[in-house]
Amino acid sequence: MDQIEQYRQLINQEIERLQPGSDNEIYQPIQYMLSMGGKRLRPLLVLMGYAMFKPDVEKILRPAIAVELFHNFTLMHDDIMDKAPLRRGKPTVHEKWNSNVAILSGDVMFVKVYQLLQEVNPEILPKVLELFNRCAIEVCEGQQLDMEFETRDMVSEAEYLEMIRLKTAVLIGFSLNLGALLAGASSDNCKLLKDFGENVGVGFQLKDDILDVYGDQEKFGKRVGGDIISHKKTFLLIKAQEKLKHKPLLDNYLTSNAFTDEDRVREVTRLYDEIGVKEIAESTMNTTFQEAFENLTEVQTEAKNKDLLVTFTNHLISRDH
Amino acid sequence: MDQIEQYRQLINQEIERLQPGSDNEIYQPIQYMLSMGGKRLRPLLVLMGYAMFKPDVEKILRPAIAVELFHNFTLMHDDIMDKAPLRRGKPTVHEKWNSNVAILSGDVMFVKVYQLLQEVNPEILPKVLELFNRCAIEVCEGQQLDMEFETRDMVSEAEYLEMIRLKTAVLIGFSLNLGALLAGASSDNCKLLKDFGENVGVGFQLKDDILDVYGDQEKFGKRVGGDIISHKKTFLLIKAQEKLKHKPLLDNYLTSNAFTDEDRVREVTRLYDEIGVKEIAESTMNTTFQEAFENLTEVQTEAKNKDLLVTFTNHLISRDH
Repeated sequence: MDQIEQYRQLINQEIERLQPGSDNEIYQPIQYMLSMGGKRLRPLLVLMGYAMFKPDVEKILRPAIAVELFHNFTLMHDDIMDKAPLRRGKPTVHEKWNSNVAILSGDVMFVKVYQLLQEVNPEILPKVLELFNRCAIEVCEGQQLDMEFETRDMVSEAEYLEMIRLKTAVLIGFSLNLGALLAGASSDNCKLLKDFGENVGVGFQLKDDILDVYGDQEKFGKRVGGDIISHKKTFLLIKAQEKLKHKPLLDNYLTSNAFTDEDRVREVTRLYDEIGVKEIAESTMNTTFQEAFENLTEVQTEAKNKDLLVTFTNHLISRDH
Repeated sequence: MDQIEQYRQLINQEIERLQPGSDNEIYQPIQYMLSMGGKRLRPLLVLMGYAMFKPDVEKILRPAIAVELFHNFTLMHDDIMDKAPLRRGKPTVHEKWNSNVAILSGDVMFVKVYQLLQEVNPEILPKVLELFNRCAIEVCEGQQLDMEFETRDMVSEAEYLEMIRLKTAVLIGFSLNLGALLAGASSDNCKLLKDFGENVGVGFQLKDDILDVYGDQEKFGKRVGGDIISHKKTFLLIKAQEKLKHKPLLDNYLTSNAFTDEDRVREVTRLYDEIGVKEIAESTMNTTFQEAFENLTEVQTEAKNKDLLVTFTNHLISRDH
């Protein structure tokens, strides 16, 4: 994984090189968001998608960080909508400044994404924009569905899977697709990497849902059971609601004031265990990871060129926090 | 002006042809904003910039309405920030739905702008994006300055003129520039039309500032003196603050609870009259219009091709409401 660390360093250096456009106050929150760090997962995937066909990744750092900027733009606006006080342990932009600043700095950040993308080879620019615009719209549609689900009684499994595909997976798919496209890969290869990315993206979210209930508190970082306490409609809850004949009991545990948060987490987890929700979720997750690796197998390039992405993905799949 | 009406009809037909991407609720506010109508000033200018060099304006309706979508996106987000309850006499999006919907629908609308622009001839696509991205960032910077000025004691004339250039004039300039670029005009001609647009844009805003105080209530539509009642830092107020030795008196009229709004408007207007602020504002406005027409004179095309833009601009300059 030394290669990954080297890529991450290149990405962070390129991000540091980004200069604010002027001394207008609009640029401070952008610097603040980007300086919070993070795993840089999406630009890493751009580089890995590229490296599968061409070695000189240092040539595509600007479009790679465009994807990281887009991701941070969505976080800045989502945090306002979700009234989130913290992001990576620090005050969110709308908390540190205010909502107006977060709206407007986000908008500028979004334009910066296009400024970076616009620099790609003019021959592929229309294609890059077409793919990115589609992806950006889908991410917004996913956020809208996520907010809508909060106010709905029932959400089906299919609806939930489509929501997480839109909200998080399409950007993972786009990142790999962009890398391959920049390397001049065939449209078949691009499409396969896009599908691979979307499948692992959905799988990662299912993994998050499972870890939130069944993670080891020592390693997890966040409070185990947080999704249960906040009544979040996760894959586990949706499956339990679907399976349980005694749904009122589940709703009662989730919402009644008679329970402490501790009771709530324990009792809902007990219901989950009774109906084997964890196993159902793991089975769905494993199916999507399996489909992902089938996509990757079909990509036409030397087998050794796939090693890095395979290792990296397996590392993410096996994480326990 | 029959030609203008015909252009406006083409624009409105093209806007009506825009289909929402899916039945996701995110698209309803976009349709709502666009159906409110409006003068369609910016897409009209795109067509006029084009028609100065080529006649077949029906070929550029999609990029022309991209500019109208961008304008409406900025209105949707600005209305949240300004807590505006009404837009063109109807509830704003954040009032009719809520702020989250207005943030997210605005974001989608912004992507739609790029989807429309992306369709232009690939040869000029990088240039179109470069100009548009710069323009979009400047519009955001202008909105940020406008909000910042609200909380400041003093704003200089130069700062105010730069703010209105960014917030409103650059998009007028971009509209004409885009039209000319789409028609294959030379970069000199494009630049001259951009400068023309920015100058008339600043002039129009100064005209708004003057009409708000000195307009005829019968014709004005809004309440005359509205800017005085809301303490808005207009060109007139900034000039008065600069000129008046007895600034505390002006501030007192503006903010003291001892005055009714009617008293406030009358007394501040009286102070404006004493120092001839209207004449100063008119002089600055006339200078910018003069510079605009000097830019237009230098544009290399048959004189008769400029007639429509000249007539249209003069019509806007001479409006009294």
